[in-house]
Amino acid sequence: MVANVKDLALRERAAKVIPNGMYGHEATHLLPASFPQYFSRAKGAYIWDADGNRYLDFMCAYGPNLLGYGDELIDSAAVRQLAEGDTMTGPGPVLVDLCEKLVGMVSHADWVMVCKNGTDATTMAMTAARAQTGMRRILVADGAYHGAAPWCTPMPGGIVPEERAFISKYKYNDAASLEAAVAEVGDDLAAIFASPFKHDAFEDQVLPDPTYARRARELCDQTGAMLIVDDVRAGFRLVRDCSWELVGVRPDLSCWGKSFANGHPISALLGSDRCRAGAEAIYATGSFWFSAVPMAAAIETLRILAESDYLERTIRLGEKLRAGLAIVAERHGFTLRQTGPVQMPQILFDGDPDFRIGFAWAEAMLERGVYVHPWHNMFLNGAMTDADIDFALEAADGALSQVRSSIASLEPHPMLMALMGAH
Amino acid sequence: MVANVKDLALRERAAKVIPNGMYGHEATHLLPASFPQYFSRAKGAYIWDADGNRYLDFMCAYGPNLLGYGDELIDSAAVRQLAEGDTMTGPGPVLVDLCEKLVGMVSHADWVMVCKNGTDATTMAMTAARAQTGMRRILVADGAYHGAAPWCTPMPGGIVPEERAFISKYKYNDAASLEAAVAEVGDDLAAIFASPFKHDAFEDQVLPDPTYARRARELCDQTGAMLIVDDVRAGFRLVRDCSWELVGVRPDLSCWGKSFANGHPISALLGSDRCRAGAEAIYATGSFWFSAVPMAAAIETLRILAESDYLERTIRLGEKLRAGLAIVAERHGFTLRQTGPVQMPQILFDGDPDFRIGFAWAEAMLERGVYVHPWHNMFLNGAMTDADIDFALEAADGALSQVRSSIASLEPHPMLMALMGAH
Repeated sequence: MVANVKDLALRERAAKVIPNGMYGHEATHLLPASFPQYFSRAKGAYIWDADGNRYLDFMCAYGPNLLGYGDELIDSAAVRQLAEGDTMTGPGPVLVDLCEKLVGMVSHADWVMVCKNGTDATTMAMTAARAQTGMRRILVADGAYHGAAPWCTPMPGGIVPEERAFISKYKYNDAASLEAAVAEVGDDLAAIFASPFKHDAFEDQVLPDPTYARRARELCDQTGAMLIVDDVRAGFRLVRDCSWELVGVRPDLSCWGKSFANGHPISALLGSDRCRAGAEAIYATGSFWFSAVPMAAAIETLRILAESDYLERTIRLGEKLRAGLAIVAERHGFTLRQTGPVQMPQILFDGDPDFRIGFAWAEAMLERGVYVHPWHNMFLNGAMTDADIDFALEAADGALSQVRSSIASLEPHPMLMALMGAH
Repeated sequence: MVANVKDLALRERAAKVIPNGMYGHEATHLLPASFPQYFSRAKGAYIWDADGNRYLDFMCAYGPNLLGYGDELIDSAAVRQLAEGDTMTGPGPVLVDLCEKLVGMVSHADWVMVCKNGTDATTMAMTAARAQTGMRRILVADGAYHGAAPWCTPMPGGIVPEERAFISKYKYNDAASLEAAVAEVGDDLAAIFASPFKHDAFEDQVLPDPTYARRARELCDQTGAMLIVDDVRAGFRLVRDCSWELVGVRPDLSCWGKSFANGHPISALLGSDRCRAGAEAIYATGSFWFSAVPMAAAIETLRILAESDYLERTIRLGEKLRAGLAIVAERHGFTLRQTGPVQMPQILFDGDPDFRIGFAWAEAMLERGVYVHPWHNMFLNGAMTDADIDFALEAADGALSQVRSSIASLEPHPMLMALMGAH
């Protein structure tokens, strides 16, 4: 067992002043009980929990850590801008620099609207598409996560059905399902949302079928609707452009967030001129949307993305991790389902419908200093090295040996079971 | 005329890569043409535009600047935290420290949910109230601003009416209107929203009538609904507590943002145990909600709020400004309507229905190095001094003299007229 006295003390205090002790995607209620909730430090590829335990971190803050925590060039750019001005009565010149830089990098984009949450970007995409088309219906893939606003949050507590009026579902990667959904909408289609690939929690990831992606584009062209790629999670992790450049399809709108300032708080809606009038017709804003510090950090991040081999390195290390884990798993009699892009791995176990093996694996990895997630896709980052991957593979060898020897006594996670039962 | 070559060049570039050239509350489309859009620097009570012109800034970034731009203690706390970790795979211990500190300062609050936009906080308040009560209807005061999400944005572009289902209006400060609205809802009332005082754009501000505020509390107690005070704009500017402590009324939920980290990006929903179950039943989150840097900045800000006389000073300076402006205006034959708390002044002109005098005044003030707003409430901050107020009053004397001499040739702002015609 790793030391967790400070984490437990923090949780006890938090239980009084935070609903459920913690909330949102970083709450550990649906993780093994030994997972720490609080972190005191992060540097490069590593995080330290409140008790000082160090972990090689494959969650990367659920995405924002793209080039390594505490990147000195990026954070220096942020600190320099902070000394000049951050949240002011108007934006800094960095707003224009940043928008030009994004438009220069993302092929489909002619314009940018900067915001703060990924959900801001997806909500603006929906609203701009409706304003552009005058139509109401929004198609989203069943199970896809597009944020936590009432129209899209995956948990319906406190939501009224009217807030999701005109949101319809189709099956990701299934052109026939998409066609049927479009046909059912008739002449009221405003937009089709698509994740760059299927990265739903608890499931194998699936790369986009180019036939489906092209059909989505065609259907939007035929109906006048807007095609929206939600690149919040995957942006700049697959390609230095919108992720669907990889399948040769350009959306009208793309949603960005998480990592384009390497963890500094900024997100963005990017669009083509096909949806400029729609973007000009909506009103959306936030107290900190025009703050200069995250923009300065983003500009430096984008410079590094363009000039470094971060992408090729994370892909190479991801391939090494995937191949190595397959061998280690086989050694211990497990079959891993490793899906999605190697640099954004989802790792599930065959024959593990209630995730008890995955939870045991994650717990055993944590004990060995590696933070992996049992049901959410993970991320590699640009600060990781071959030595880190070797370390992870060595940990996996020990962890899977331990899981194998204890497999008869494993039990499923009670809260996860309650949640799955409710769905 | 102030120099504006760089500002114009930035606008020209921005017109290509940003819809409308700029968007949101910091866009200058509805301000006099001479107002700069871009700012390069901010320090204390002053901002510098992209051309290097300096202004005493009464907008305070539309609220976030509470203690002065670039406060060294607060920014040092932020930079220290940045070196340790910001956006990580879990929150830092600073999350618990901050929530305890807020609960300790805000009398009605038992718990805190930190978020990023003011709109996040108001939307969570709505959702938590619905989850707590099982009811749907939300009452908001006609004309009040509660954010820019589809359910509340003041401009309806791209919004479908269904997204505002169950949002009903009442008249602020009018207990009878509130009673009638509650009666009409029947047994479906989830919440009553109230601004701490009426601070709608283009209008005189109005302080809350205690009878109305108490009636709102009683109606919530009788029906089981939640009372929500939206303190995003005014929080900690009127009192070191929820603003409605001044009228002796405690809400179940209060929304905070803008200034409690002195411009670092963080907002929060605070609640009492009466709404804890509702808060525990909703799902809301964001990529950067658990970032540690703005929390460290907030903790230092709250320490200064508790230990300094910032509040008494901004009130004293606000009184000096209001009294001085009234004298200066009278000297030049104008009657000012200076309304709301002196530290959050709204300044409108009698006999100026299309704001042409207000716009001319703001423009003339800008030329003299003072940034005032012709139709939005303003803010004093803790870095302002008697000398700053003297400077503003001297500028006002010159500005109003100039407006008086040019009054026959003033014209209303064309875009403002188009907007007002549309309403």
